[in-house]
Amino acid sequence: MAEQIFTYQHLYNFTDAVFKSIGCSDEHAATATQTLLSADLRGIDSHGVARLSGYVRLWEAKRINATPDIKIVYQTSSTATIDGDAGLGLVVAPFAMQVAIDKAKLAGTGWVSVMNSNHFGIAGYHAMMALQHDMIGMAMTNASALVAPTFSVEKMLGTNPIAVAIPANEQPAFVADFATTTAANGKLEILQRKNADTPDGWVQDKDGNPSNNAHALKTGGALLPLGSDREHGSHKGYALGSIVDIFSAVLSGASYGPWAPPFPAYIAMPENMPGKGLGHFFGAMRVDAFRPADEFKNHMDNWIARFRDAKPADGHDKVLIPGDPEREMQAIRLTEGIPLLESVAADLKITGNKFGVSL
Amino acid sequence: MAEQIFTYQHLYNFTDAVFKSIGCSDEHAATATQTLLSADLRGIDSHGVARLSGYVRLWEAKRINATPDIKIVYQTSSTATIDGDAGLGLVVAPFAMQVAIDKAKLAGTGWVSVMNSNHFGIAGYHAMMALQHDMIGMAMTNASALVAPTFSVEKMLGTNPIAVAIPANEQPAFVADFATTTAANGKLEILQRKNADTPDGWVQDKDGNPSNNAHALKTGGALLPLGSDREHGSHKGYALGSIVDIFSAVLSGASYGPWAPPFPAYIAMPENMPGKGLGHFFGAMRVDAFRPADEFKNHMDNWIARFRDAKPADGHDKVLIPGDPEREMQAIRLTEGIPLLESVAADLKITGNKFGVSL
Repeated sequence: MAEQIFTYQHLYNFTDAVFKSIGCSDEHAATATQTLLSADLRGIDSHGVARLSGYVRLWEAKRINATPDIKIVYQTSSTATIDGDAGLGLVVAPFAMQVAIDKAKLAGTGWVSVMNSNHFGIAGYHAMMALQHDMIGMAMTNASALVAPTFSVEKMLGTNPIAVAIPANEQPAFVADFATTTAANGKLEILQRKNADTPDGWVQDKDGNPSNNAHALKTGGALLPLGSDREHGSHKGYALGSIVDIFSAVLSGASYGPWAPPFPAYIAMPENMPGKGLGHFFGAMRVDAFRPADEFKNHMDNWIARFRDAKPADGHDKVLIPGDPEREMQAIRLTEGIPLLESVAADLKITGNKFGVSL
Repeated sequence: MAEQIFTYQHLYNFTDAVFKSIGCSDEHAATATQTLLSADLRGIDSHGVARLSGYVRLWEAKRINATPDIKIVYQTSSTATIDGDAGLGLVVAPFAMQVAIDKAKLAGTGWVSVMNSNHFGIAGYHAMMALQHDMIGMAMTNASALVAPTFSVEKMLGTNPIAVAIPANEQPAFVADFATTTAANGKLEILQRKNADTPDGWVQDKDGNPSNNAHALKTGGALLPLGSDREHGSHKGYALGSIVDIFSAVLSGASYGPWAPPFPAYIAMPENMPGKGLGHFFGAMRVDAFRPADEFKNHMDNWIARFRDAKPADGHDKVLIPGDPEREMQAIRLTEGIPLLESVAADLKITGNKFGVSL
């Protein structure tokens, strides 16, 4: 598949202009653009600018409010519940993470559950906001149901990612960011474009039987929780995805489980939704609420160095620390540019043309 | 393998007497006994009274202090760091979880990291302490290294379990409690006794190649992180186990990664330990720090009912909620008794005989 290369700044200017065109304030457009493009920089192409047209279609369908009044509706010294007012998750989430950080400054930790939001880009971006404050950051979100719990045929959970960012001193930060499924939906989409089969353990068919069909979700099949099947711990992946759903949506008053709103604007909203919009959950913990920050960060250096030096298995160069591949990708893409599939670039041009913004 | 049945009360009296015999106060012996036997009641036989002789051997080796001065060494309004003074984890952990609950009463949430502790039984017991206060409870612990990170031959992490307990109203609570590996070590031990092979994806051999040998850990092999291999998301299980290790041990000042102290007293302590003892991490979140408790619990009822009613796959009766099997087992064992393998009962008799306590 042919690709076109764009500089980060070029995609930034384009995306920022599109967000302003749908009515975002300058500040919100800048925040949304930075959040969205952090995925492209880190190599998580499925969650980056390729989704811009999807956000615009949600705005056209009046499911996204470009001028939200994001506010705290309930709080204690270490917690808050936020109503995102149907805003872009790309804007609501950084607002909420900042509240968690501000709470942590005073109370040691801050925990924020968010309702009435939308897709928030990559979880890792929000979790990493904590790092510059010598805090551990956490971010998670529910999402529309593509995943069948262990023993279930019905799709009940989203790919519900969890991100945890932990600061170090000399070493780069530890940044884990992963869907609670065996394979993220983005990996399935890559196989669909190639007309290739999936490995065992990624999807099941409409009767709950093992499948290798990358299109299985279109015929009643489902993604599988991390662990794939009961014998390999899928009940653990199912539990993790459930915890993300409950923290993000039941705690906040968002719509949970099979009632989570879909990302594609052409899919009807679920009936009888038990809450408002998508939900997120954020956490920030000051490391010096537990021990002196330098002491902690020096031990993190030691932890990271020791794991990086673990003896690699045959056929592998080294053991990776969570966040290594994405950080290395970001360094490359900031200098060499961001490659987009021709089909993605064409889709962006169409979106830009709606507003007289050229790619 | 032949079994003997004991009533809960019988095992309680025996275990309590053994803990008092090694010097525990009445209060500590009662706490340790309740914590330990909660595993037997819930059907997690690998973590219950079968380990009593192991705790006694750690005490004999002077690695466990039966009269610890457990204290908060650092705190903020929502956090605390606790020094377990080398006490039984079975006593240190409930103390620490109570601190988390007390913090949450005032600050909305409470987060406690613990150093200088020992094996704490099942994580779920501690997490569940929060339920009666209408709080969400969390518990995790690091453990001696049996698990190889993705691409690693070296064992760097323990089975590092995570437990999350979430209250409901009419429905029983949601209680997830799982090792961050594909299979817990207890399941491996069952196969070892039967001289049976493991399924694919549970262990690797000393060179990092796939293995089905249930004894693989004795010849340089390792347990695999949840996900089994890279293609099935083992980097996610590795990240989860790492997060547990860092929250439990790097945050508190315990010994982390490959330096975590071993449970068997005959294994030498690691050299150059970077901290003191095992580490744990606990959390408590008041649900009414986010929304009214009844509202939350009614939505949890709805969540649980909807997931329980999900259409089951061919060959399965129903979809389970995390905690269902353990709760059902507890009801059975409280009335019908707790079965112990003859070998476990014989081992307990030997332990009791050291102190003139008869099983």
